[in-house]
Amino acid sequence: MGEFELITRYFQRPPQRAELAIGDDCALLRVDAGQRLAVSSDMLVEGRHFLSTVAPDRLGHKALAVNLSDLAACGAEPLACTLALALPRADEAFVAPFARGLFALADAHGIELVGGDTTAGPLTLCVTVMGQVPIAQALLRSGARAGDELWVSGRLGDARLALEVFRGSCTLGADDFEAVRRAMECPEPRVALGLALRGLASSAIDVSDGLLGDLGHVLQASRVGARIELAALPRSPVLAAQAPALQHECLLRGGDDYELLFTAPAARHADVQGAAAAAGVAATAIGHIVAAPGLVLVDEQGREQPALARGFDHFA
Amino acid sequence: MGEFELITRYFQRPPQRAELAIGDDCALLRVDAGQRLAVSSDMLVEGRHFLSTVAPDRLGHKALAVNLSDLAACGAEPLACTLALALPRADEAFVAPFARGLFALADAHGIELVGGDTTAGPLTLCVTVMGQVPIAQALLRSGARAGDELWVSGRLGDARLALEVFRGSCTLGADDFEAVRRAMECPEPRVALGLALRGLASSAIDVSDGLLGDLGHVLQASRVGARIELAALPRSPVLAAQAPALQHECLLRGGDDYELLFTAPAARHADVQGAAAAAGVAATAIGHIVAAPGLVLVDEQGREQPALARGFDHFA
Repeated sequence: MGEFELITRYFQRPPQRAELAIGDDCALLRVDAGQRLAVSSDMLVEGRHFLSTVAPDRLGHKALAVNLSDLAACGAEPLACTLALALPRADEAFVAPFARGLFALADAHGIELVGGDTTAGPLTLCVTVMGQVPIAQALLRSGARAGDELWVSGRLGDARLALEVFRGSCTLGADDFEAVRRAMECPEPRVALGLALRGLASSAIDVSDGLLGDLGHVLQASRVGARIELAALPRSPVLAAQAPALQHECLLRGGDDYELLFTAPAARHADVQGAAAAAGVAATAIGHIVAAPGLVLVDEQGREQPALARGFDHFA
Repeated sequence: MGEFELITRYFQRPPQRAELAIGDDCALLRVDAGQRLAVSSDMLVEGRHFLSTVAPDRLGHKALAVNLSDLAACGAEPLACTLALALPRADEAFVAPFARGLFALADAHGIELVGGDTTAGPLTLCVTVMGQVPIAQALLRSGARAGDELWVSGRLGDARLALEVFRGSCTLGADDFEAVRRAMECPEPRVALGLALRGLASSAIDVSDGLLGDLGHVLQASRVGARIELAALPRSPVLAAQAPALQHECLLRGGDDYELLFTAPAARHADVQGAAAAAGVAATAIGHIVAAPGLVLVDEQGREQPALARGFDHFA
């Protein structure tokens, strides 16, 4: 199977919103009046961002999910995506389920694949997503204010726990492993929550490099500090059953969570709970923004410890 | 040097048109009223799309150039780009000149880098460009009509000739080699010509996979055929000095030309010449569109030969 046949068979579908999708030099897309185009691009490399053991349909899901998560963190409504795919060979046994996983998530969010590129090379995926948001409602990293509550959606740390099992540094029963492996391989982008937080959250980011690292970006952009209650960090029963040191590592420096970390005025606590309920996802208050720079962790015994807000670095 | 420092030092510059560029989850960008967003994405893999011998500044140029060429072929005005970059290591000796080459071309076209990704991995570049064009003026592959003249910008085949020298299948003197190598490594996207062809060209595509292959896409999308005069194909003095068989291979199946191949009504011959002159690039009439499907090559002796319109396939 050649390159063009592979694209036609697995990736080309009739345009929906786009006036021109796959099959010309560019895709043409409408951005509604009064809205700004929101764009984000992520590259996934085999062995770095995913293991060779991942099922292709889950990989298709994840490649799009991590990008939709960026739109969610911005409060943007997803419109379309492009996919650039380097493949060792044109292997239908990989491409067919990969496309199925990607399109299932695309359909769930009402977006379409409008273009991209297919080439031979080491397995690498680059998805660019496009969305729209009214400029005044975009959720930025820079809006956190002292006194704001700090929230996180869903649960943290399961993806990292799964990675530790793959690394052989801990073991889990089959059902527990499948549950955390699913968190690692099939993250659900919190798009509905991002939209519900427009006009409500003062700042937002998606947790992709670990809670501390991504919170660090918000604190730096907003020029504030934060206090986090370790006991409040939402975790699965599987993670809660692990040793405290491993729990903390997964919760604070896990990475690959794709949950939304956001701030909102404390007076709007109930509104945030309502927004999360409407979006069908849990939201947990995990601490506060403070004026003094730096990050303080309050442990389960109420002891304060300063923490370094550093995330995962691909070259470190 | 870590990932975030590398991004800050080499890729982050103050936003220009973008309301939000590098440094948040998404970039936010304005698309003007009455315009459509035009998007294209290309991935370049070391050893496939470029040789390890290429100077990093030229690679930075080329990664953006091949994408701007897609906007040009659509008649779109470039706005912004994203860059996803997988690097074996955070090597400043590579990244500094790479960024310099990319930004020099971006500046020449008044566009900005608004986001992307940096990761460790086999050297791979994925650029996504965004532009805008009024929907009615977009140049598509599907608009060629019988009787239209067929045009190509610049010269064809030099990039392929350079590749043949690298492959060892032919030799050139140092000056000649540098000239064709420059064509391969530093293509100039024909953005000004694409804009000048709005409302004038009936169809357009950029020649990236070889003249025959890309013409094939236009003929298929437009449901027409074409006659090409081999003698008319524009070529450099260096290519013109090669054996006829090599010339034909480079001209017809070369690839990496990044010239515009377009059609326009024959009655507008002078207008096309004027548009090309205004855009500062040569345009050569190389044949005609005919109603009967298929492609006929007319050789230097006036003999007709049918040709297969097939382009480069990364998996063939």
